[in-house]
Amino acid sequence: MSFYNHDHVQQIDKLMADIIKLKSPIVVGLDPVINRIPKVYFDAHANEVDDFKKISKVIIDFNRDIIDSVAEIVPAVKPQMAFYEMYGSQGIIAFEETIRYAKKKGLLVIEDGKRNDIGNTALAYAQGHLGKVQIDGQREKKNFDVDFLTVSSYLGKESIEPFIEVCKQYDKGIFVLVKTSNLGNEEIQNVVDKNGDTVSEMLAKYLHESAEDFYGTYGYSSIGAVIGATYPSEAEKLRKIMKRNLFLVPGYGTQGGSAKSIVKCFNEDGLGALINASRSINYAFEAIYNVENCSKEAYRDTVRQATLTMKEEIYHELKKEYKQMSY
Amino acid sequence: MSFYNHDHVQQIDKLMADIIKLKSPIVVGLDPVINRIPKVYFDAHANEVDDFKKISKVIIDFNRDIIDSVAEIVPAVKPQMAFYEMYGSQGIIAFEETIRYAKKKGLLVIEDGKRNDIGNTALAYAQGHLGKVQIDGQREKKNFDVDFLTVSSYLGKESIEPFIEVCKQYDKGIFVLVKTSNLGNEEIQNVVDKNGDTVSEMLAKYLHESAEDFYGTYGYSSIGAVIGATYPSEAEKLRKIMKRNLFLVPGYGTQGGSAKSIVKCFNEDGLGALINASRSINYAFEAIYNVENCSKEAYRDTVRQATLTMKEEIYHELKKEYKQMSY
Repeated sequence: MSFYNHDHVQQIDKLMADIIKLKSPIVVGLDPVINRIPKVYFDAHANEVDDFKKISKVIIDFNRDIIDSVAEIVPAVKPQMAFYEMYGSQGIIAFEETIRYAKKKGLLVIEDGKRNDIGNTALAYAQGHLGKVQIDGQREKKNFDVDFLTVSSYLGKESIEPFIEVCKQYDKGIFVLVKTSNLGNEEIQNVVDKNGDTVSEMLAKYLHESAEDFYGTYGYSSIGAVIGATYPSEAEKLRKIMKRNLFLVPGYGTQGGSAKSIVKCFNEDGLGALINASRSINYAFEAIYNVENCSKEAYRDTVRQATLTMKEEIYHELKKEYKQMSY
Repeated sequence: MSFYNHDHVQQIDKLMADIIKLKSPIVVGLDPVINRIPKVYFDAHANEVDDFKKISKVIIDFNRDIIDSVAEIVPAVKPQMAFYEMYGSQGIIAFEETIRYAKKKGLLVIEDGKRNDIGNTALAYAQGHLGKVQIDGQREKKNFDVDFLTVSSYLGKESIEPFIEVCKQYDKGIFVLVKTSNLGNEEIQNVVDKNGDTVSEMLAKYLHESAEDFYGTYGYSSIGAVIGATYPSEAEKLRKIMKRNLFLVPGYGTQGGSAKSIVKCFNEDGLGALINASRSINYAFEAIYNVENCSKEAYRDTVRQATLTMKEEIYHELKKEYKQMSY
């Protein structure tokens, strides 16, 4: 394998370096669910009369506490866009502030937006989330400027192309939906095409080819795939097709994926996957407290503890499986 | 066929009534592309120093002029979310104001967001775009409150269920991606499953079944499908499977779909489909003017004229094809 080092692989290199340094191939989700957030976060904004503005401020504070609790433990956070845009422009303000704060703390930001469309519209999504947008005939500016975006794939390969172009131009990455963690994925993702490939495998081959231009110092590509933690044997097959594409692996914790089930998402160097947990960390406090009696300090402790536990579980399984692990 | 009339079919009934009254099975897209908008819309906000705030105001004015020009000609408008969220929270403010204004003018709003995810996250999208969101333990509020939303389908049927539930609860509709207008759709959408159905047909059968509870007075269901104008023979097959699901048909005009190619998306009553044109209407002025010399009045005239021309073309083809047309 040849390793390249272009301008557009700085982010993937930072991600891989942080995974190794922290021994933590983990991304913490930021999924603010309003009636599961401790009351103390609302008390601080009791004077805000506009409902959506109040929620926006609550989410910002809540996310800051999660970010502060995990910034030394994990390389990245993953805000799930649905939980922000459900509060409209005020929700998006919370999303924007969350991105700014996470980056300030040295974390990479993976936006879970599952965006896509055809042609110029796909390009508009790519520019708006990862690249720059037109201000007038002369000027462009960054908008969300997240580091990675999840991309939906029902429209086929050509709809993924504009995202790959923008990744190259702005040193960004994507995770394309290949094999999702939900039961019903099989209706579409396991259907076999004329070449004998499942839809997942067809996309995997395409992403493997597309990765070519994006290998960083560690030999991994920021053109990645979403691979659910719930299908280990299929993950193993897809790992072999997409040897050096980064996997984003949801479904750990609440969706039933275990540390054992995710080892096949990695290569023998213990790299190649980023395991996500969201609610099992964001709402770990519910095992001890309720929304009424959980202080901010107690909240941060539960987040930190749940993240450390997950990190240890995963690192332990990786060490057991891969004797040659590089970290 | 039995016709139901529940509380949750008011919107589809309004849509069908307006199509018949206006003789116009047409939806006008609202796709603001900054460097194609006439300069006069920027001049009005020359004093606004914040780039994104200025763009937000420009988009609002631009969309208002389109809405005013077409409100008496078509039943609905379709903002394409990518072109709003690319300007972050300020873009979403323009989106929110556009929805408000279109509704005030009596138009239905179809949000082209192609959203989806699994389980609770799909529900969050459904609630945020179509239903109500949680404010605190006691209260809920509407957020975007659009009438219809386009929904992506790579995650399978179960990911569509939360949207259908929210449609029932809040009298809304969806258009699920079944057969898209882009060339590359075939890689996934034409793959044949174990039952001998293409992925498109499999989804079509599911949507036909799901429509059961949503038939309004006109016998059509608000659980709809996106069917590209560019594949007439497949549209005809899908029309037979989804007898009474509403079709949203993109690809007319700029993508090469013609009035001839879309007649098979309709039933013999001349109903069942909503043909979309966006840029061929939004930027019709480019045939005569440029961004420098197009006044607001001239702009509105080109929008109105392009919409009328499209309406006449489509109505003419429908009348020719379906002798029993109901309007």
